[in-house]
Amino acid sequence: MDKNYRFEPELMTDLINSLKRLPGIGIRSARRIAYHLLQHDLKGASILSSSLTKAVENLRNCKGCNGFTEYDLCYICSNQLRDKKLLCIVETPTDQNSLESSHSYKGLYYILMGRVSPLEGIGPKELSFHRVLDRAQDGIVEEVIIATSFTAEGETTAQFLIDMFSNKDIKTTRLARGVPAGSELEYIDTGTIAWALLERKQVG
Amino acid sequence: MDKNYRFEPELMTDLINSLKRLPGIGIRSARRIAYHLLQHDLKGASILSSSLTKAVENLRNCKGCNGFTEYDLCYICSNQLRDKKLLCIVETPTDQNSLESSHSYKGLYYILMGRVSPLEGIGPKELSFHRVLDRAQDGIVEEVIIATSFTAEGETTAQFLIDMFSNKDIKTTRLARGVPAGSELEYIDTGTIAWALLERKQVG
Ligand SMILES: [Zn+2]
Ligand SMILES: [Zn+2]
Repeated sequence: MDKNYRFEPELMTDLINSLKRLPGIGIRSARRIAYHLLQHDLKGASILSSSLTKAVENLRNCKGCNGFTEYDLCYICSNQLRDKKLLCIVETPTDQNSLESSHSYKGLYYILMGRVSPLEGIGPKELSFHRVLDRAQDGIVEEVIIATSFTAEGETTAQFLIDMFSNKDIKTTRLARGVPAGSELEYIDTGTIAWALLERKQVG
Repeated sequence: MDKNYRFEPELMTDLINSLKRLPGIGIRSARRIAYHLLQHDLKGASILSSSLTKAVENLRNCKGCNGFTEYDLCYICSNQLRDKKLLCIVETPTDQNSLESSHSYKGLYYILMGRVSPLEGIGPKELSFHRVLDRAQDGIVEEVIIATSFTAEGETTAQFLIDMFSNKDIKTTRLARGVPAGSELEYIDTGTIAWALLERKQVG
């Protein structure tokens, strides 16, 4: 329930509404942030405005992995030392980072930027799974490593991927279930992740 | 603990850092918000950037009440129907809104934009109490109504104000303690606030 701020300046209302649009920010937080910025951190407000503009104008999805980059290919995809025969599919850049931090994977990635979630109306189509398939069928990739989270939605996502690759000439593996069921990948320590990568098993 | 994102585009890191600077936003939320904006809500990112810029450039503190306004005087301060003999001191615009919503106050306001908090190093000086005093001594104000929260910090703030006005020729009152102790003003229903205004008692 939001009280009616009839006397609030329109520019303040606009700012609060645009903050409220952010995920996880309710009306109270939005208002608190807006007041804080205007009263105590004008510089922070300007910096945020400018970094938003720069990010929107310059960042795009990497043609190789779908991650964020300023160029056509990101830092990892353009690294000639990476093993192009391995393609690891993750849900988010944060999950990708967890894998990188384990220092036990030298292949490439594909970032779904989400997970299948029937309740939210997010299916393979919304996540553009056809692009994952195109990417994996570049004639170089020999193995797809599915590294979605071991949550209900992560499992559903994995199953869709397994089905999609089932009749393709590509080895499909999945991280070993060494991580506790029901947990998010990004919260797992890197040692466990390294172990799960090593013990990955073929599923398709 | 934040993992090292060595391969993250600098513009993304900048955006995440500027989001992390917002009150109540940790590194995980900042990253989640940044990814969401870039992947799913570019328009929201642009709107936020532009509303931040407009707010920073056009909003200022009202010369009358210290609230936010696009003009020298805000909507309330420039309303000739308000009773200029009453000055109600509140901590935040949200508290002011709570009082306005009770439809039982027709005087003017002064918004401290904070509260005395020794632990955070915020005292009368940081809140520019001298400006409250100047404002109240305009020769028109006859009564100052202290409407700080009934929390420990709100009580401390009230006491500083009471002391400041103690030897001045201005009646000083406080909202009746009709509201439960330990609660924030902004969470109180308007009926209780109306009653507390009516029952306000002189304290200085
Ligand atoms: Zn890439
Ligand atoms: Zn004003």
